[in-house]
Amino acid sequence: MQTITYPSRETWDELLRRPAFETERLFEKVRKIIDRVRTEGDRAVLEYGALFDKAQLDSLLVSEEEIQEADKKVGIDLKAAIYLAQRNIAAFHASQRTEVRKVETIEGVTCWQKAVAIEKVGLYVPGGTAPLFSTVLMLAVPAKIAGCKEIVLCTPPDKEGKIHPAILFAARVAGVSKIFKAGGVQAIAAMAYGTESVPKVYKIFGPGNQYVTAAKQLVSLRDVAIDMPAGPSEVEVLADETADPVFVAADLLSQAEHGADSQSVLITTSATLLDKVVYELERQLSYLPRRAYIEQSLAHSKLILAESMEVALEMTNAYAPEHLIIQTRDYALWGEKVVNAGSVFLGPLSPESAGDYASGTNHTLPTNGYAKAYSGVNLDSFVRKITFQEIGPEGIQGIGPAIEVMAANEQLDAHKNAVTVRLNKVRKS
Amino acid sequence: MQTITYPSRETWDELLRRPAFETERLFEKVRKIIDRVRTEGDRAVLEYGALFDKAQLDSLLVSEEEIQEADKKVGIDLKAAIYLAQRNIAAFHASQRTEVRKVETIEGVTCWQKAVAIEKVGLYVPGGTAPLFSTVLMLAVPAKIAGCKEIVLCTPPDKEGKIHPAILFAARVAGVSKIFKAGGVQAIAAMAYGTESVPKVYKIFGPGNQYVTAAKQLVSLRDVAIDMPAGPSEVEVLADETADPVFVAADLLSQAEHGADSQSVLITTSATLLDKVVYELERQLSYLPRRAYIEQSLAHSKLILAESMEVALEMTNAYAPEHLIIQTRDYALWGEKVVNAGSVFLGPLSPESAGDYASGTNHTLPTNGYAKAYSGVNLDSFVRKITFQEIGPEGIQGIGPAIEVMAANEQLDAHKNAVTVRLNKVRKS
Repeated sequence: MQTITYPSRETWDELLRRPAFETERLFEKVRKIIDRVRTEGDRAVLEYGALFDKAQLDSLLVSEEEIQEADKKVGIDLKAAIYLAQRNIAAFHASQRTEVRKVETIEGVTCWQKAVAIEKVGLYVPGGTAPLFSTVLMLAVPAKIAGCKEIVLCTPPDKEGKIHPAILFAARVAGVSKIFKAGGVQAIAAMAYGTESVPKVYKIFGPGNQYVTAAKQLVSLRDVAIDMPAGPSEVEVLADETADPVFVAADLLSQAEHGADSQSVLITTSATLLDKVVYELERQLSYLPRRAYIEQSLAHSKLILAESMEVALEMTNAYAPEHLIIQTRDYALWGEKVVNAGSVFLGPLSPESAGDYASGTNHTLPTNGYAKAYSGVNLDSFVRKITFQEIGPEGIQGIGPAIEVMAANEQLDAHKNAVTVRLNKVRKS
Repeated sequence: MQTITYPSRETWDELLRRPAFETERLFEKVRKIIDRVRTEGDRAVLEYGALFDKAQLDSLLVSEEEIQEADKKVGIDLKAAIYLAQRNIAAFHASQRTEVRKVETIEGVTCWQKAVAIEKVGLYVPGGTAPLFSTVLMLAVPAKIAGCKEIVLCTPPDKEGKIHPAILFAARVAGVSKIFKAGGVQAIAAMAYGTESVPKVYKIFGPGNQYVTAAKQLVSLRDVAIDMPAGPSEVEVLADETADPVFVAADLLSQAEHGADSQSVLITTSATLLDKVVYELERQLSYLPRRAYIEQSLAHSKLILAESMEVALEMTNAYAPEHLIIQTRDYALWGEKVVNAGSVFLGPLSPESAGDYASGTNHTLPTNGYAKAYSGVNLDSFVRKITFQEIGPEGIQGIGPAIEVMAANEQLDAHKNAVTVRLNKVRKS
């Protein structure tokens, strides 16, 4: 853990730099797997599954029996929690629906946008030691709310060829159409190109390791859209002397447990708070099971003392954190001034964990400074806005002559002609 | 021109396939240029400009004098047309603003989304024989409406080192901050990484040839967002026996003049109309200056006769055209059923040219079937939706226990702890 006091502006770039996360060097390796899946379909997916996940499978598709069996294995507490999270996520994403607003830009010219769901989407949920059923909810619930017809989910099985019951339960609750036992590059390729059992989708969502990220990037160059580029997770806590050091430390630690490359940053105007947070980090760390991970991550995390809230906020916008927790006096006012962040948590009782699981906001967010250009996953991620226009006789007479002039100046005479033939007819009648 | 009657469903994929457009094979060449610009800055941009655009420049930035000079050179008709287009584009894109809607997902948990403009955007406008000032308007007007602070425009100069006055005029009208005389890969690289004179931006927009597209794709893998992948332009006209063959032919031709690789498709339920369109295409072609281009493009264009409007519409959604013009009885009803398209033009008096220039909708649209997953450029393209949440004592008590259960099941105990420390404090008080 590094403590930095009043860093000068020239050092900010260096100070706020993320751990490097290169995927391009993996492209060659990853492309080979993609190409095999593209040409050989299920057979290649099954073979790579046997190789990487050590799972011998007869079929990729999770059966109805497996889903029903899973339902029996999930405890009542977890079921209730998943239902509560699903309800809140659904409520928040449903509120993002937009109504069709017809605009007469000029008399006789009516234009509008209509949000139409992407018909087929693919969701990827990584494997590993813990079942990431929360990610299932964060991707599938908005897809369902948006109206996507086919919601395909791929996730790697364990060595026994099973998917964790909580994942199957969450997928069922969220409305996933089909679940496949496939992970890694081969899962991304299967959804991008389709196989005998996995349907081809138009957009792929979800987190993953560097191989999965590289595969998503490669297929996105031509064949299928992806949610966003991915990097290690990160949190910034922006705090002043009114913040509770216990909460601040807990928030920094919760980010740090994601993995050795995730990043926790504190920017504060209070030296006293900073000292207390250092103490609290040690204290809380002592009773956390993922201590080993957390210590690695804390090693490159930063506690920064800033001259003023204005400077702290400027530094925050320069960093563009995935998660930003503001625990200050007047946190609502400072929140208004945030320009670059994925998701903002306001006040002492709004931990990142709330957004990670159950408040309703999405936890798939832009990392690595991408918040400067990208939104997190939201309802928009699952729709296209198609534009429509209808032009009447007044309309074509109103804008037609301008179009003729512009098209002629761009030397596009057939464009001009398409208007001229209409003006001729309208003027005659 | 191919005429196809009642094609069977199995042949649709092949029939509706786009001309191939591979950019990956250009990556190595393009990467070299990008790397040089990244390390050498202005010097490399100037050198590549001398090499590719044959322009010897002292400075990349267009001066205030040049902009004022351009103002004198643009005719009054064209100025009026540009103002009209700018006003309509502004009106339509302003109507896409969304209000902040606070949602209490559960008592004491308030979540909302706020659209915040991307601070720095880069617009690319290709060179060539004609000045594409309409593209300047289509990119810069929404950027300005969105509230982007820095709007950078790059476009290649002619051999005399000049930018066409109509481009400079449109850029001024639309609110571009800085205009640079840079084209091709070097322009994309300059905006992606910044040089001594060109500011680094967070997202790059605009059309271009295969090199520009490859450059945009390469920089988007890590460093900067892009609007969407690009391919050759295309139109589909969906028509029945009520359509005017003069209009239909004019619309097909206006698309065809974009270049040899652009595609025009007619899908109709009327054999009579189809015959008349063939005749009209020949007749109108005879008086169009870009005849050579158009004939090349028409060579791989298709006129398809469908059994019914239902089948025609299904084929349309399978094709996912960039532009879709519906000239049928009940065109509004059929328009409602469109699922995959970039922009839809309804009725006899709504030519694609209208949306290309002046009706208000954007002309930067998803080609190559990307309409299945991507929207065209719209106000959303220039903003991020940042999520916010504020949780009060009731809220954390309402969702806290569910978060604790979920985090424990995902083996993320520090996530759980961040809630537990808060519940402990709230319950005590």
